[in-house]
Amino acid sequence: MEKFFYPKNVAVIGASHEERKIGHVIFKNLLEKFKGKVYPVNPKTEPILGQKVYPSVLDIEEEIDLAIIAVNASIVPKVLEECGKKGIKNVVIISSGFSETGSLEGKKAEEKIKEIARAYGIRIIGPNTIGIFNSENGLDATFFLEKDVKKPKEGCISFFTQSGTIGILTLDILAKENIGIAKLVSYGNALDVNEADLIEYFSTDEKTKVIAGFIESVRNGRKFLEVLRKNKKSIVLLKGGKTSFGARATSSHTASLAGDYKVYSNVLKQFNVIEAETWEDLIDYLKILSTGKIAKGKRLVIITNAGGFGVLASDYAFRLGLELPEPSEKLKEEMKKYLPLYASVRNPIDITADADIERYEKILRILDESEEFDMLLIVVLIQTPMLDERIVDVLKEIKKPFAVCMSGSKAEEIRKNLRLFLPIYESPERAVKALKIISELKA
Amino acid sequence: MEKFFYPKNVAVIGASHEERKIGHVIFKNLLEKFKGKVYPVNPKTEPILGQKVYPSVLDIEEEIDLAIIAVNASIVPKVLEECGKKGIKNVVIISSGFSETGSLEGKKAEEKIKEIARAYGIRIIGPNTIGIFNSENGLDATFFLEKDVKKPKEGCISFFTQSGTIGILTLDILAKENIGIAKLVSYGNALDVNEADLIEYFSTDEKTKVIAGFIESVRNGRKFLEVLRKNKKSIVLLKGGKTSFGARATSSHTASLAGDYKVYSNVLKQFNVIEAETWEDLIDYLKILSTGKIAKGKRLVIITNAGGFGVLASDYAFRLGLELPEPSEKLKEEMKKYLPLYASVRNPIDITADADIERYEKILRILDESEEFDMLLIVVLIQTPMLDERIVDVLKEIKKPFAVCMSGSKAEEIRKNLRLFLPIYESPERAVKALKIISELKA
Repeated sequence: MEKFFYPKNVAVIGASHEERKIGHVIFKNLLEKFKGKVYPVNPKTEPILGQKVYPSVLDIEEEIDLAIIAVNASIVPKVLEECGKKGIKNVVIISSGFSETGSLEGKKAEEKIKEIARAYGIRIIGPNTIGIFNSENGLDATFFLEKDVKKPKEGCISFFTQSGTIGILTLDILAKENIGIAKLVSYGNALDVNEADLIEYFSTDEKTKVIAGFIESVRNGRKFLEVLRKNKKSIVLLKGGKTSFGARATSSHTASLAGDYKVYSNVLKQFNVIEAETWEDLIDYLKILSTGKIAKGKRLVIITNAGGFGVLASDYAFRLGLELPEPSEKLKEEMKKYLPLYASVRNPIDITADADIERYEKILRILDESEEFDMLLIVVLIQTPMLDERIVDVLKEIKKPFAVCMSGSKAEEIRKNLRLFLPIYESPERAVKALKIISELKA
Repeated sequence: MEKFFYPKNVAVIGASHEERKIGHVIFKNLLEKFKGKVYPVNPKTEPILGQKVYPSVLDIEEEIDLAIIAVNASIVPKVLEECGKKGIKNVVIISSGFSETGSLEGKKAEEKIKEIARAYGIRIIGPNTIGIFNSENGLDATFFLEKDVKKPKEGCISFFTQSGTIGILTLDILAKENIGIAKLVSYGNALDVNEADLIEYFSTDEKTKVIAGFIESVRNGRKFLEVLRKNKKSIVLLKGGKTSFGARATSSHTASLAGDYKVYSNVLKQFNVIEAETWEDLIDYLKILSTGKIAKGKRLVIITNAGGFGVLASDYAFRLGLELPEPSEKLKEEMKKYLPLYASVRNPIDITADADIERYEKILRILDESEEFDMLLIVVLIQTPMLDERIVDVLKEIKKPFAVCMSGSKAEEIRKNLRLFLPIYESPERAVKALKIISELKA
């Protein structure tokens, strides 16, 4: 598996001269970012982006670690065979037109490439994938340009997905939210490499601290259980095809049947896997998990300049089983030094709508250093004239696990211009839900 | 109540010369936007923003319909008494420092202004509010400038809230999402006007089609039930203080005890009130309700160029009890004319990731005109090179009730530059949840 992510060189089979073609974009992304040699392969040998083009991988002198195939489905067997002869052991097949079409021809074509792969001992990711991504060495073998899909910076999350579109969205949204990523794989029809292989690899990969994925069906139940049992890292999964409606949608696009959801869900619980209920939950959880922080207990303190959001956060914390202890008299006295008389120090700590950055700083420092709480939820009603983007400087100093709730137009502006990562949520309930997740992780 | 929203003129008592003061901002907002005369009142009579200042309302010659009081709590009784003598019957008291402080003095001060109001027959909104807002006549009596809090354009939603901060956030977020508003009231300590009065007024107000509110406690249970029974409009409520945690937070900031949530929740069901579970749900529901469309049934069709999101939307639709019927053979044949062979026409209609604007247009037109579905969920993976902001021109032509799911950085850009309103959601599940709401409304 290692060479899928850390090849010394890559051949792009089907590297195209036409700018809009998939084979062109993949080659361009790799040429610009990958820290290693990239070989374009195409029978038409005019240079692409100034690079010498090889008619076949067999014409490349150097040994090749990884091949990306982006040619028409009908040509895949031929070029895969050439990969085999060249001794390439890792191949990503981007091309679609196989079992996912639901046609007999597609299924047969997939069987044929399976045979070739077996004959030559080639490991395959795909077919029907948007590619793979490794932030560490610039291995961006996806067919999307930055202008359409933003790519995340380096981080500790590794993500796998059958669905290519989910892969695209994940890259783009994590980048937009300033969340870093280690590796991402869209494994498509899972002809060979599947969810179990990827969890297994990520669970030993040094750069990966959090494993996340979107699963439609589990191909190899026994191995899946085995890798979950062995895994020691945080793992979050979102399941598609939980219901008969979803299963129908699944089978229409990735050529697999949805598993029995209840069985699946119980297995996840057994192995301490965090199950995201919705797409939004998945992204929200990744956001807080990417901080690498774990809350030691369930004692939450809410600091707010917006009474109403303090109430909503409190209600939701109760509902999710978090604790909201009242601060000790000593702690209350300490906070009161910096608060007006009409502020509340009971938890939520309501520092009132006229709070300025300094008041936030004083109170947050006291609570961050207190032993009475395990985590902080900080509500910032940024719409008051007393506050602006400099609140970020205060928030980034917090050591305890925390989440920020900040919403509206000014918040959007701040988030857009944020150069660092902060776990900011648009609603109090989403922030509480995320904190709950890190209060359940084992160190 | 009418004169709170449609006064011919307004006196701003405590209109300040200092730019950062509440009394200055309110006067400025009204002066710039209100379609009627505005009188600044302040014992210091130097002109403010070039306008003649009156030492007291008693010095104004004209009859006054509405007074906004933004002076220190200690001066409120005096100026309110003057309002009484002047014959002003509608007063908004912005000032805080009353029962919400939890102090005995605050409570006494509130009792005192209650007595004055009763003596002169004055109706009061407040104290401790961020003000009131009417988009129709530019009555922006809030103490926030556009640079901090965006204000929504005209629309059919009227919103009430005890919590001032929820009022601010609502204005700002509705504006950001291009959702229009009719009227907004922050009624603070509810010394006089409360949630029941406002629901009653909005239920007869011509400009209001949807009533929405954030409630912490119900002051007058009997009247509350009565107005809900009489109301014929769509009504959405979010309750704060549902739990003991939330109730504690509530009492700390608005001087009222949270009611028994279960009783409350059952009452809402009985009167067909839509209860939002979270802040995000509330905004999401307002978004779809502001379209004014009602789905005639539960038959949903999902159109997607992103297989994974089609699966998630289908699962969630099942979970919420919506129907996802397979199109008739006739309809399938009609769609197939415009789709590649590998597309799926089973519902979700997966028009595949290479769909361009034209393909969306053809398929959406067919489904919009079909009698087989009551509403549409349109997933647009906008990250493909085939799509851009021109998709908006296609979406705006749809006649059936619909919601759009579009997420990521390109979607954010499109939403930001959107000149019209479209019910766009960032996740498939949120879009489904919103559609469910309009499938339950009665025409």
